[in-house]
Amino acid sequence: MTGKVYLVGAGPGDPELLTLKALRLLRAAGAVLHDDLVAPEILQLIPSTAQIHNVGKRCGKKKILQEEINGLMVALAASGLKVVRLKGGDPLIFGRAGEEIESLRRNNIPFEIVPGVTSALGAAAAARIPLTHRRASSALVLVTAHRASDRRSEQDASDWSKFVANGATLVLYMPGQNYSDIAKRLTTAGLAGETPCAIISRATTSYQRTYRTTVLDLHRAPQLAAPTLLVVGEVVRLADAATVAEELVLPEVFLKPSLSQALHPGVNAEAIA
Amino acid sequence: MTGKVYLVGAGPGDPELLTLKALRLLRAAGAVLHDDLVAPEILQLIPSTAQIHNVGKRCGKKKILQEEINGLMVALAASGLKVVRLKGGDPLIFGRAGEEIESLRRNNIPFEIVPGVTSALGAAAAARIPLTHRRASSALVLVTAHRASDRRSEQDASDWSKFVANGATLVLYMPGQNYSDIAKRLTTAGLAGETPCAIISRATTSYQRTYRTTVLDLHRAPQLAAPTLLVVGEVVRLADAATVAEELVLPEVFLKPSLSQALHPGVNAEAIA
Repeated sequence: MTGKVYLVGAGPGDPELLTLKALRLLRAAGAVLHDDLVAPEILQLIPSTAQIHNVGKRCGKKKILQEEINGLMVALAASGLKVVRLKGGDPLIFGRAGEEIESLRRNNIPFEIVPGVTSALGAAAAARIPLTHRRASSALVLVTAHRASDRRSEQDASDWSKFVANGATLVLYMPGQNYSDIAKRLTTAGLAGETPCAIISRATTSYQRTYRTTVLDLHRAPQLAAPTLLVVGEVVRLADAATVAEELVLPEVFLKPSLSQALHPGVNAEAIA
Repeated sequence: MTGKVYLVGAGPGDPELLTLKALRLLRAAGAVLHDDLVAPEILQLIPSTAQIHNVGKRCGKKKILQEEINGLMVALAASGLKVVRLKGGDPLIFGRAGEEIESLRRNNIPFEIVPGVTSALGAAAAARIPLTHRRASSALVLVTAHRASDRRSEQDASDWSKFVANGATLVLYMPGQNYSDIAKRLTTAGLAGETPCAIISRATTSYQRTYRTTVLDLHRAPQLAAPTLLVVGEVVRLADAATVAEELVLPEVFLKPSLSQALHPGVNAEAIA
């Protein structure tokens, strides 16, 4: 008797941003394969009878290949288990679900996709940035800063001019730490130096930090803890520095140059949480 | 004593796609202002002691202005209530939250934003369309088909060429029923006629319907019940027609031209749920 695989979004970080459906499935799981990005509080919801596999590719010492994840998922389901494939954010956005789905289909494993709150939405909510706005932005573009090794993807992802010239809000998933390179690419794409942007680190968790700057000054941004996300566009100007600053949880080292700016917001750069 | 306003995303339709946080806030609410798009099962979670206001602008006989919603929200919070402003999907995407936030700030009302699963993610999960894919699409663009009366927004929203030429997946919120016009705009923007697309109606509810076609044949699409969403891009090809067809719930009138295509998928047009 074949089991079933559930590709489930765990949301952006805060365990309370899990959906009711994700909670129900986790509690009934026979096996869970999870990313590094999933919060420990969420993993604690898994029954002790279930197998738990960390298949995160980010922090693990041993690099696990996508093909190995696919194989494990198929084998567990084929043995009759209800398998939850738990991914940070939403499973269908930059989560390589496409490849997992293809593998499940090839092996005739029944599956279901359970959407989650994607990181961009969590980060924007926490930093109070309306991603679209009647006057400031009528489109939202989600991209990765990754330059994929694949030729076709590289072409797509690296030409941001098509997106940014349109007055859209741009959210970069996994921007990495090379902000100079990103700033250069944004400028090459046609974005003005004064375009506001915000780096949001560990959004919706108690470790959340937001650093607000401009494309021009982006290269001076501090290195915040992963996962981070970069929001670029006029809507960032609508974030409320004062209110969010009340919730500051930055350690001293990060605050030194930016706290005073948060409390006395400057024109170009400020830390807002 | 001033209350507080929570701008809360109710998710794409299925009550189980509510977040745990949204559920907790709804159960503790003193007043709820909700959109038309919010499911009755979700409204039933509100305690009987709470005021409930339907401020939907879509179906109501009396058109309620955004300014009236803002005013009501501020007044209720000022009277000391915990107010939940419940929006379909995520509050920060095409939900005019920007304007509500500005109004709350002007009136010094404390507020918090609680993200939700936006409709594009719900629809894609239900139709099994990976929105990004290592090989097929490295960016996701969310836009409205609305031509806003505002001059600037119109410029932004109507020039889709900047987006589609980039190999991105395009999701149109509120596409309306004029598919001929949308097809013309997509073609003008440079999309090939054979580009696959899917109309998803009432995603994640038991009334969900998906109609798969191409840009070329989009004008022949049936009129499905609102809310609908249009997904355009190569990733639509990755949706699994056969599996989803098992869940068909279309009334006879919709099925006539498309069910046979779903069961015997053609090249250009098929209904997949």
